[in-house]
Amino acid sequence: MRFTLLHTAGAARRGRMELPHGTVETPTFMPVGTAATVKGLTPDDLRGARAQIVLANTYHLWLRPGREILVEAGGLHRFMGWDGPILTDSGGFQVFSLQDRRTLDDAGVDFKSHLDGSLHRFTPENTIAFQEALGVDIAMVLDVCVKLPAELPALEESVRLTSAWAQRARAARASERTAVFAIVQGGLDERLRERSARELVALDFPGYAIGGLSVGETREEMRAAARLTAAHLPSNKPRYLMGVGTVRDIVTAVDCGIDMFDCVYPTRCGRNGRAMTRAGEFHIRNAAYTHDFSPVDATCDCYTCRTFTRAYLAHLFRSGEMLGPRLLSLHNIAVLEDVMREGREAIESGSWDAFRDRLLGSDDSREASDTALIE
Amino acid sequence: MRFTLLHTAGAARRGRMELPHGTVETPTFMPVGTAATVKGLTPDDLRGARAQIVLANTYHLWLRPGREILVEAGGLHRFMGWDGPILTDSGGFQVFSLQDRRTLDDAGVDFKSHLDGSLHRFTPENTIAFQEALGVDIAMVLDVCVKLPAELPALEESVRLTSAWAQRARAARASERTAVFAIVQGGLDERLRERSARELVALDFPGYAIGGLSVGETREEMRAAARLTAAHLPSNKPRYLMGVGTVRDIVTAVDCGIDMFDCVYPTRCGRNGRAMTRAGEFHIRNAAYTHDFSPVDATCDCYTCRTFTRAYLAHLFRSGEMLGPRLLSLHNIAVLEDVMREGREAIESGSWDAFRDRLLGSDDSREASDTALIE
Repeated sequence: MRFTLLHTAGAARRGRMELPHGTVETPTFMPVGTAATVKGLTPDDLRGARAQIVLANTYHLWLRPGREILVEAGGLHRFMGWDGPILTDSGGFQVFSLQDRRTLDDAGVDFKSHLDGSLHRFTPENTIAFQEALGVDIAMVLDVCVKLPAELPALEESVRLTSAWAQRARAARASERTAVFAIVQGGLDERLRERSARELVALDFPGYAIGGLSVGETREEMRAAARLTAAHLPSNKPRYLMGVGTVRDIVTAVDCGIDMFDCVYPTRCGRNGRAMTRAGEFHIRNAAYTHDFSPVDATCDCYTCRTFTRAYLAHLFRSGEMLGPRLLSLHNIAVLEDVMREGREAIESGSWDAFRDRLLGSDDSREASDTALIE
Repeated sequence: MRFTLLHTAGAARRGRMELPHGTVETPTFMPVGTAATVKGLTPDDLRGARAQIVLANTYHLWLRPGREILVEAGGLHRFMGWDGPILTDSGGFQVFSLQDRRTLDDAGVDFKSHLDGSLHRFTPENTIAFQEALGVDIAMVLDVCVKLPAELPALEESVRLTSAWAQRARAARASERTAVFAIVQGGLDERLRERSARELVALDFPGYAIGGLSVGETREEMRAAARLTAAHLPSNKPRYLMGVGTVRDIVTAVDCGIDMFDCVYPTRCGRNGRAMTRAGEFHIRNAAYTHDFSPVDATCDCYTCRTFTRAYLAHLFRSGEMLGPRLLSLHNIAVLEDVMREGREAIESGSWDAFRDRLLGSDDSREASDTALIE
């Protein structure tokens, strides 16, 4: 993998990642394909929405369909029919959200499947081996994620183990085709975030994620932690803020120097009838839209907005028709990808500040704050 | 509307319908878009599966979103984003399946909505006015449908009223752009089918449907009634067998001289994991397919078969992922449309008998018999 920093605008960065399955222009948003599918959408849909790279979840794929089938299929790309870059998370976030169904030790974590109660174990080594076996472009190290708010000792322990596991994950790498990114922990503690970043940067990973956010803290706390952490990461490596997916949060984070994002937010909203636009969000089931023959977002050129009206989508959702979630998920992803595209152009052309202020000036009172639930 | 009979092969016919929204090559299968959407699929998907004309249900659209919104939208085509021909049924089949929620009189039928219990009334006149207001290419007359097996008096009464209503529907026509088809009733009674056909043919409709089948009779009874009825219909008008949608039933009916078909079968099967192929049907959830990396149907060139494996679809269905029903619905429609295309070519090229025998020679023991449930 190669990362090139092309332009900056203050802390905001315009970059390019060259990966085995293609080039990713940054900043970029990665739609979440939890179980080897972005819910309801095909690879063609994702291309149409300008998605460049897709995320999938190690935890879910490990349990179903499992490594054997994914390897027999020729890897995750061929299995899901997406030939562009794929990033898989390490499963840490999901396993640590299992609460009383997992047991942590220094070498890994035992957990019970949420599907059938079967016992499994994740280690820094076996999660890297799994992701490499899937042939993904970017793998994440197994990290120890703590729900916020958390006591300092718990955060310290998560930073300690995350660094130790990152070192072991790094040593376990066996494939040239999969780049392994580390994940900075430390909660909202400034000193711990800095320590986590410093320890991981010393290990010289090709990219760094900021983890342990979007897990219960306020939006302002999240922004402050992201900004602080980004400042401790090397400028020549991509930076990835995990679990962030509203227009305002992403624009704010790009302004802090973040390059990559993922979140279930646009697809979860899409399934529930919540439409995202640059100007704010609204619920398509509201009575006002049953007679509204304008597109979901007049500034959007996605298939949904080119083809259908709010009235039609309102009808689909009121009728329980599965086409509704599909069309709105597609639109919501397209909005984020289009904001990213415009953001990249703004950084290149020196108009980033105006772009940022225009988007952040919009009312976000209608944005949900819990953007990081497991789908 | 203009219908041209281009070729015949025994009773089988190769024709062409020219309609306000496009040309339809017959024989043809019409995917069912009950509530102004073929479940899970977009107009682009339908074009990709070679669908030429789509069916929608007057009963469902009357209740939701209702006439006002559909007219404000500029008609059903614009509302649902499908610019090809549309046929709407009259609502008769649905209303008469409501059993104790409807009251029949000589002038129409009162019924209670299955959605909210609200009271409505269908008449031959208002159902034609509704369909014309929607701007559809083909409207169906309101008919009286009887569940089989039925006593002779009930069948006689349904034939009498259906003819009377057809006359009134014909007189109620007000638009040049919507062709109105009549519906032959008479159950499995040879004499009544003939009488119904004769009375309706005397009224000179541009097309005729065979109704009241796929409602409880055996497959052989259905075939015999379709063959008999077709023989009493004029050769220069299209013939439409309502509610038939398996490969074998359609091929058999084309061989009886039928030109048009509709059924929820391919989409209902698709949602439930049942894959249709020329060689038979199978359930994608069966364990055998979890490791099967061949396409659903190796002879099919639909998007699903070009892009994904049985193993992937098996995974989607086992994971409850909405992409599974979407992809399999698309495939099942594509199979029927492709069989229709090959059938048309076979009639043209004089190879219909061989084509028919090849398809009917396959084992249909796995086909379901209840192909006409309301979606």
